[in-house]
Amino acid sequence: MSTPDSWPAHRTGRLSSQLDFVAEADKLKGVLRHTRLTAPPRLENSAEHSWHLALMALALAEYAPAGTSLARVLAMVVLHDVVEVDAGDLSVHADAAAQARQHAAELAAADRIFALLPPDQAEEMRAIWDEFEERKTAEARFARALDRLQPMLADVRAGGAAWREQGVTADRVLAKVELIEDGSAELGRFARRLIEQAVRDGILAPAPVPGDADLDNAAPGR
Amino acid sequence: MSTPDSWPAHRTGRLSSQLDFVAEADKLKGVLRHTRLTAPPRLENSAEHSWHLALMALALAEYAPAGTSLARVLAMVVLHDVVEVDAGDLSVHADAAAQARQHAAELAAADRIFALLPPDQAEEMRAIWDEFEERKTAEARFARALDRLQPMLADVRAGGAAWREQGVTADRVLAKVELIEDGSAELGRFARRLIEQAVRDGILAPAPVPGDADLDNAAPGR
Repeated sequence: MSTPDSWPAHRTGRLSSQLDFVAEADKLKGVLRHTRLTAPPRLENSAEHSWHLALMALALAEYAPAGTSLARVLAMVVLHDVVEVDAGDLSVHADAAAQARQHAAELAAADRIFALLPPDQAEEMRAIWDEFEERKTAEARFARALDRLQPMLADVRAGGAAWREQGVTADRVLAKVELIEDGSAELGRFARRLIEQAVRDGILAPAPVPGDADLDNAAPGR
Repeated sequence: MSTPDSWPAHRTGRLSSQLDFVAEADKLKGVLRHTRLTAPPRLENSAEHSWHLALMALALAEYAPAGTSLARVLAMVVLHDVVEVDAGDLSVHADAAAQARQHAAELAAADRIFALLPPDQAEEMRAIWDEFEERKTAEARFARALDRLQPMLADVRAGGAAWREQGVTADRVLAKVELIEDGSAELGRFARRLIEQAVRDGILAPAPVPGDADLDNAAPGR
């Protein structure tokens, strides 16, 4: 079997480094997320998730603030999960300590994986990844909004299976909408209505304590 | 279970149509290709393949002709296989009659699937898909080159398993390199050397008749 250091010789080592990165990223197809697909009925992997975000960026571009660079958003969503080759996927509903451990693991992964590329590209792609993580630019905020919205859409399509498996209630899902609103006011409004409907449809459990502050916003009277 | 026509009400039907398209495209995660992955050891699906092409477009952009729009290439590779939701994947090594049937099925699929979008976007995305298929622009030719190169890289990494399964010999793989050369001279040269090396390494069978015109170019003396 050919290994990454056995590419045929060519003009410079540059293409070889780029192909090492491309081959390493292939492993993302084996990283399973917490999102349950319906057809096929299995967990989603991070590579196909990243593709779905890129498709959403194309289809929903008009909901980003005017002037947002679609090309930059596409680059971000394509690259954002490459670090999971080392760090794996963590549920968005994991607790703060687990999130902190994940963040540290992802930073170490970014150091290792982007360094497979030639130095100029390593720097360029790392900057794209950092921008996504830092969530300061319009592009990053829109990309992050899509990254939050995509599993919600899948969870609704799967009849709430992933929510039940993780014991997640509406208040915890609603807490994640703020980040969608931050990237796109219209998609944020939509996500809020989607969750309200999921509760009404009985596929997402309401907050355990009626009167919880988060849930009050979503489902008055519950 | 929520169906595509049950999105919560919103300002216009526009977002609903866009989300129908996004949900329909989800099925691409269940379309299996003829490429064998090594980790995880299974067939690749068309959604994760499309993501891998987008990653390659970012990593290998410098091998496209000067002035090629990377954003357009990204849009093309993200959208190019959406028609397989209806038409399925066909091996690049299938015969001409099967290719013709596949092309007809993909045209019908494009008519149906892009029409899920609002009319202006349906037209825009269909134009991107048509451009990829017609292979006339620099962007389309580069995107098509990546689409040919990616499975070759995977086949080498898998030790030639997919080639053996399909009974494909070097002459038939080499015949596919022309399209890579057309999109990127440097990636075409690399692909040619990759195949020569695969034959030398014994993971790709040489042409059944030594002296075959295609193989002469690739492995002199064989």
